[in-house]
Amino acid sequence: MARRPIIVIAPDSFKGSISANAAAMAIAQGLARVWPDAELRLCPMADGGEGTLDAILSRGGQRRSARVSGAGGMPIDAAYGSIDAGATAVIEAAQVVGLTDPAGTAIDVERRSTKGVGELIRAAFDVGARRFMIGLGGSSTNDGGAGMLVALGLSLADAAGRIIDPTPEATAALAAVDATRLDTRLARARFTIMSDVSNPLTGSDGATAVFGSQKGVRAERIGELDARLARFAALAEKAIGRAAEDKPGAGAAGGLGFALLLIGLDAALDGADWLITGEGRTDKQTLLGKTPWVVARRGAQAQVPATLISGGIDRVALPALAERFAGCFSLADGPMTLEDCVANAARLLADRAEQAGRLYAAARGAGAA
Amino acid sequence: MARRPIIVIAPDSFKGSISANAAAMAIAQGLARVWPDAELRLCPMADGGEGTLDAILSRGGQRRSARVSGAGGMPIDAAYGSIDAGATAVIEAAQVVGLTDPAGTAIDVERRSTKGVGELIRAAFDVGARRFMIGLGGSSTNDGGAGMLVALGLSLADAAGRIIDPTPEATAALAAVDATRLDTRLARARFTIMSDVSNPLTGSDGATAVFGSQKGVRAERIGELDARLARFAALAEKAIGRAAEDKPGAGAAGGLGFALLLIGLDAALDGADWLITGEGRTDKQTLLGKTPWVVARRGAQAQVPATLISGGIDRVALPALAERFAGCFSLADGPMTLEDCVANAARLLADRAEQAGRLYAAARGAGAA
Repeated sequence: MARRPIIVIAPDSFKGSISANAAAMAIAQGLARVWPDAELRLCPMADGGEGTLDAILSRGGQRRSARVSGAGGMPIDAAYGSIDAGATAVIEAAQVVGLTDPAGTAIDVERRSTKGVGELIRAAFDVGARRFMIGLGGSSTNDGGAGMLVALGLSLADAAGRIIDPTPEATAALAAVDATRLDTRLARARFTIMSDVSNPLTGSDGATAVFGSQKGVRAERIGELDARLARFAALAEKAIGRAAEDKPGAGAAGGLGFALLLIGLDAALDGADWLITGEGRTDKQTLLGKTPWVVARRGAQAQVPATLISGGIDRVALPALAERFAGCFSLADGPMTLEDCVANAARLLADRAEQAGRLYAAARGAGAA
Repeated sequence: MARRPIIVIAPDSFKGSISANAAAMAIAQGLARVWPDAELRLCPMADGGEGTLDAILSRGGQRRSARVSGAGGMPIDAAYGSIDAGATAVIEAAQVVGLTDPAGTAIDVERRSTKGVGELIRAAFDVGARRFMIGLGGSSTNDGGAGMLVALGLSLADAAGRIIDPTPEATAALAAVDATRLDTRLARARFTIMSDVSNPLTGSDGATAVFGSQKGVRAERIGELDARLARFAALAEKAIGRAAEDKPGAGAAGGLGFALLLIGLDAALDGADWLITGEGRTDKQTLLGKTPWVVARRGAQAQVPATLISGGIDRVALPALAERFAGCFSLADGPMTLEDCVANAARLLADRAEQAGRLYAAARGAGAA
């Protein structure tokens, strides 16, 4: 092999047996047997909410903390993880702007922002992190990630040029977005989103319409707030020079997904050689847009082949799956019961990932020769 | 993909479900979905005896016939197959020198030879064949393939320089072998052996000691005939400039395996990119030298990675298997019963080969990029 491969590991949960985090770790374990030195980018397609940080730190790394702004502006000590000898920071948005934080949710959703998430990214930058794994589940905000971007140097202004806050309330007056003072470290940073949400930022499937009510957005405000997000998105996209509003996942965490996609679109796939995804059971539902299908489509856009490892693969769906995936493999290592498969999912997944890795390595060797 | 891949398909039978021939065809069917234009070299590790020709012709091609010498020298009309638009000839040694041919076996085994097999190869050359699939099971001869080589231009002489017959009886006087008039078409021909025998030509595991008695070699003659084969082999190897006596499979068909290996050593693997083998069940017995293990070792010698597809793969054996195979995959596409797996083996095998092929193709593309 010419160089160490870069492999993105982005499974869904294996329903009824192991979580997306556990699945990603099992796949990583199997691949490490093939390539001890591979760059494995874990992007479990979990909700990325509470528990994500703990799960990742259970493999190693250090827990750190920084004082940042909570959703409502009050200071909060937010935990984050430092892995890969400090090169990668693991951030859980819910640690900063969590739905379960009473101080944050005491403030109206229209006055909450994700500023603290940006501050946490800055804190991690300051201690050497260059890669970020960001879990998006369980947030209380609906600011389109404007707060995070502002904390990283974006500025928002009204028609008179006055700086305004990155809250849904204040952005009623938004007229201009300036990205010229965006943190220059972002250009070399890489963001990997951990999320199971594939909604776009705005519209009837967007963050506000779908997730707004659980965060306290009143039904009659949905249209207005959605329009504010759309205007912010249009201005931010123009200022930064990229588009993300319609990307699947832009609507995660009240639009924090949008902001991250804007500064680090599908960064996990940048330069990657191979993508492994998975789920508990694959059938025609998968073809309609379940996680592995969406992941594979993103892979295809980035020209990274995607391989599927699944608890079971429906034969009727296989021809259509074969068009999308660079190989679909079952967990089963022979005739076995569903109970055995579920009970041993992690081990079977590691073994299957290893075997697929061995074939990949051999083929890659052949191709390069 | 830079060019169409060359893939060798060399499964054992899937015991209790499908034959090696059927397994090879199922794998070929799956791979053809990935690469309609791949060069697929089918080498089912079956005994290669009666039925092989019919099984292969059931996929297409034409049945032909040529008048050649039977084992005892009497003319015989031997059937052979013409596939790949005539480029490949399928020859069953048993059609020429079969154990069930009464005219051949009426002659003492020490006077029988495989001359007719060489004549049949010549006949196929004459009508355009350049590749040969040769089944070795069910032969009545024990001439080390000397007859076949003589029919193709080798000459055997005694100490006085007199030409002698390629029979065990006549080679008692063998003193010299001349390969200078060997059919020049052999240099561009490719021979693929279909056989489940891995014995060497001579010695206690050799053709005479192990298979001689069933062909009529008397116990007290084994030592002498084995020594004659050894002398013939040494002289033929020197004349042709290759070695094959100790190769696994040289002892097949009374040493016809040796002669074919001598003129087309593991030809199926020449220039091949990938090798797929398989069997019904893989466990620690496989590690002790079952067909897929031997096939993979040959692949390794020729620097062709070997992938295993098996009905079931024992987890205890998997780490050792992983050292040898470029991926081990089960037939199962999810939790299933043994009965289902057996009943659907051909379909499952085609699907698994296809999926492995898709991963291989993607990885090879990546490697070449």
